[in-house]
Amino acid sequence: MTAVLLNGKELAREIQSEISDEVVEFLQNNATTPCLAAVLVGEDPASEVYVRNKRKACERTGIDSQLHKLPAETTTDELLKLVAKLNKDADVHGILVQLPLPKQIDEARILTAVHPLKDVDAFHPENVGRIVQGRPRYLPCTPHGVVEMLRRYKIETPGKHVVVVGRSDIVGKPIANMLMQRGADATVTVCHSRTRDLPSITRQADILIVAIGKAHFVTAEMVKPGAVVVDVGINRTESGIVGDVDFGPVSEVAGWITPVPGGVGLLTVTMLLANTLAAARNLQT
Amino acid sequence: MTAVLLNGKELAREIQSEISDEVVEFLQNNATTPCLAAVLVGEDPASEVYVRNKRKACERTGIDSQLHKLPAETTTDELLKLVAKLNKDADVHGILVQLPLPKQIDEARILTAVHPLKDVDAFHPENVGRIVQGRPRYLPCTPHGVVEMLRRYKIETPGKHVVVVGRSDIVGKPIANMLMQRGADATVTVCHSRTRDLPSITRQADILIVAIGKAHFVTAEMVKPGAVVVDVGINRTESGIVGDVDFGPVSEVAGWITPVPGGVGLLTVTMLLANTLAAARNLQT
Repeated sequence: MTAVLLNGKELAREIQSEISDEVVEFLQNNATTPCLAAVLVGEDPASEVYVRNKRKACERTGIDSQLHKLPAETTTDELLKLVAKLNKDADVHGILVQLPLPKQIDEARILTAVHPLKDVDAFHPENVGRIVQGRPRYLPCTPHGVVEMLRRYKIETPGKHVVVVGRSDIVGKPIANMLMQRGADATVTVCHSRTRDLPSITRQADILIVAIGKAHFVTAEMVKPGAVVVDVGINRTESGIVGDVDFGPVSEVAGWITPVPGGVGLLTVTMLLANTLAAARNLQT
Repeated sequence: MTAVLLNGKELAREIQSEISDEVVEFLQNNATTPCLAAVLVGEDPASEVYVRNKRKACERTGIDSQLHKLPAETTTDELLKLVAKLNKDADVHGILVQLPLPKQIDEARILTAVHPLKDVDAFHPENVGRIVQGRPRYLPCTPHGVVEMLRRYKIETPGKHVVVVGRSDIVGKPIANMLMQRGADATVTVCHSRTRDLPSITRQADILIVAIGKAHFVTAEMVKPGAVVVDVGINRTESGIVGDVDFGPVSEVAGWITPVPGGVGLLTVTMLLANTLAAARNLQT
């Protein structure tokens, strides 16, 4: 392997340690502890793991967390009522509604009901719009982790061609909008399942961000020598958890690469903590 | 000239005629006429012309319009008060705050104060976020005009590489977000002043959308033979109003091209009428 490893584990530890210090300071100045309320509807095992990991990370950094568990047959109105209660609760600073929600629930309505100041996932349309307008309140956790990783590894983006593979609301669209802003100043291309001759485009990328949810989708032939490759994929396969990038061969071509696991995933949880602390600050003023 | 002309004048006439019919029908069903309130602060001559043209277009299609003129020294608070009054006024369906505003006014605060349902320019962050999320309430007028032009000329976007030159909040960023959505399905690249080797990117465009505000910026060498070239620029020069595209030489290379004047500009006003009618409908339900 010739690429430099972008070590998410190390970065997550470093950032969480900084957050711990800031939480102590926040507590001293405000006589209240930042608090994340997690809402979990139904019994999806993966969702339960995610929520547990998020709450553990809170605990490690001194952030309070609450778990609100609702049965799988919860209606949109019932969930709206809980969200309204959490919106009003002065002890709650961040609200996380774990996705996916059961089919009978109107997901867009729920996400729009979360108070924009408590919307630590940055899924509310107002917060999405503010990102596009270059005046973000919160950044969605995974894209936030990606830009933080680039920043701490001193990978500059101005003038670089960033190619994003995948156009999800959670990763592809927000990271594209973030990196085309003034300051980030990247030239940004968004590709997806309908893109023609994808390799001819990914090979132009100085920075290739892959979030398409297909194991080993990006092969070495699709990567420009020396490129930065950020793999956002988390795919469960028979041989364990793998990313969207064919790590072995690609790491012989790329200049920088994130491993999976141990890459972006750990930063997602970490940036949720950073957003919760930011929300606690926003709600004090 | 070998390119087919994308005739904005003809399209604007056609769409405005459809809107006229829909306004009559709306009036019959609702006993109220769609109404646009235009807010003009100060005495900028260009702004006065724009507002006058918008009001004339309203009149032609049977839409009511109001003009609220405020002095150049108006404060943010005074303008917020007017916006709040218009938000509450049941006779007003669309609110247009003509930009640019005088320097002492906090533009972002004003645009965020317009009720999202009356935000016919689609500048409110909530409406911007909804575009990104693929569930738009209103589309900003110029990008709306561009997609309407492509649609009516049967220029398909799925799988096409769209290159947008310029990243303004009014044109570049929203049109990029619109065309990368499911349904539109274009591969989208956003370029700007910091882009390196711009011609190598614009030459890849199946559809090239230029909104950078520099006269004759796009030359023939920057265009792929047969491409669709959409010129959003309106630049005042000694030889009259010209676009961002060097029309003569580019029209010998492109497959389709918009003239300036007579192209996208006329559709911008037209889509403001369409949005006002849509707002009137939204406010009835």
